[in-house]
Amino acid sequence: MKTTTTSSRREQIADAAAALIGEKGYAAVSVRGLADAVGLETSSIYSHFASKEEILWEIAVRCADDFHQTVEPIYRSNLHTREKLSRMLAAHVAVTLRNRVAAPVFVQEWRHLGEPQRSQFAARRDAYEAMFRDVVNQGLAERVFREIDARLAVLTLLSALNSTARWYRPEGELMPDEIGEQLAEMLLYGLTQSF
Amino acid sequence: MKTTTTSSRREQIADAAAALIGEKGYAAVSVRGLADAVGLETSSIYSHFASKEEILWEIAVRCADDFHQTVEPIYRSNLHTREKLSRMLAAHVAVTLRNRVAAPVFVQEWRHLGEPQRSQFAARRDAYEAMFRDVVNQGLAERVFREIDARLAVLTLLSALNSTARWYRPEGELMPDEIGEQLAEMLLYGLTQSF
Repeated sequence: MKTTTTSSRREQIADAAAALIGEKGYAAVSVRGLADAVGLETSSIYSHFASKEEILWEIAVRCADDFHQTVEPIYRSNLHTREKLSRMLAAHVAVTLRNRVAAPVFVQEWRHLGEPQRSQFAARRDAYEAMFRDVVNQGLAERVFREIDARLAVLTLLSALNSTARWYRPEGELMPDEIGEQLAEMLLYGLTQSF
Repeated sequence: MKTTTTSSRREQIADAAAALIGEKGYAAVSVRGLADAVGLETSSIYSHFASKEEILWEIAVRCADDFHQTVEPIYRSNLHTREKLSRMLAAHVAVTLRNRVAAPVFVQEWRHLGEPQRSQFAARRDAYEAMFRDVVNQGLAERVFREIDARLAVLTLLSALNSTARWYRPEGELMPDEIGEQLAEMLLYGLTQSF
């Protein structure tokens, strides 16, 4: 018989919370509702997490770690600018799709964190986006990329990629890798065929 | 002295509701909280709307009407495919930015509508997206656009444009028209400079 360890029970609670928050929004999720969803008493939830906000923090940080650890090695590599950005975009899609239940927390629900967590998380997100801005600016300096506001470009690129979490279906025709590649190509080279 | 007409009071309630829903999510907004936000009694809200859901419907439909009425004439025009799509994308940004408070309702909160409104609204959104898919498919047939899954392309294009509602600041450097033009150009021609 399998026993549920403390750490896996903690993960199970965080996973269920991520799904509920993604569906209803953080403000509408209660610890009682979460307890009902995982079939536990409210007191059991509180033996793992001090508050609803601590659960939000756990989900947000776990997701942020995955984004950072996956994208940063590509950012630090010696690839040429265009190839580097292309792989960073595809990697962002890969992380988004394997965290798609928690993705709404990383994208917007983290705003419900109290201070100082909210500022800490905002700084982490900004450091993540800064890697992309840096590569876009590099490409602008090298004249590999067309004239565009780098901040505008990065917000647009990441938003386009983040949306995959909303419509991706594991039973659909396209695999996560194909989605990442097609999107990276479309965003780097445009929808327009060049002759 | 200015008198508040029934229709402007109705609009005022809908506007305040859109802002609250955008901030907290539909599930977390109560009619009482909305009444507090606009400085009215709960009973006054109910003299204008039968339910919270009717307010959601009003916001969603008003926003959908603006998108349709702005984009459809461009879709029906005789412009060449690439120019047509470019103008449709820029028009989508213009409508998004002038409805940016209500935009989260059009993008995702409409899912909280009950039936049959939910299905009716989903059909309207699909008809809207179908105009874009149609133009992308036209461009694929004409070999003006590169090989890509048309559904994937349209979801990505619209998500990229929808994100402007989240980060646009009226006091920022870029005007709505410039944002629309830069994004349409980036999405159609890619970030990469062509020589």
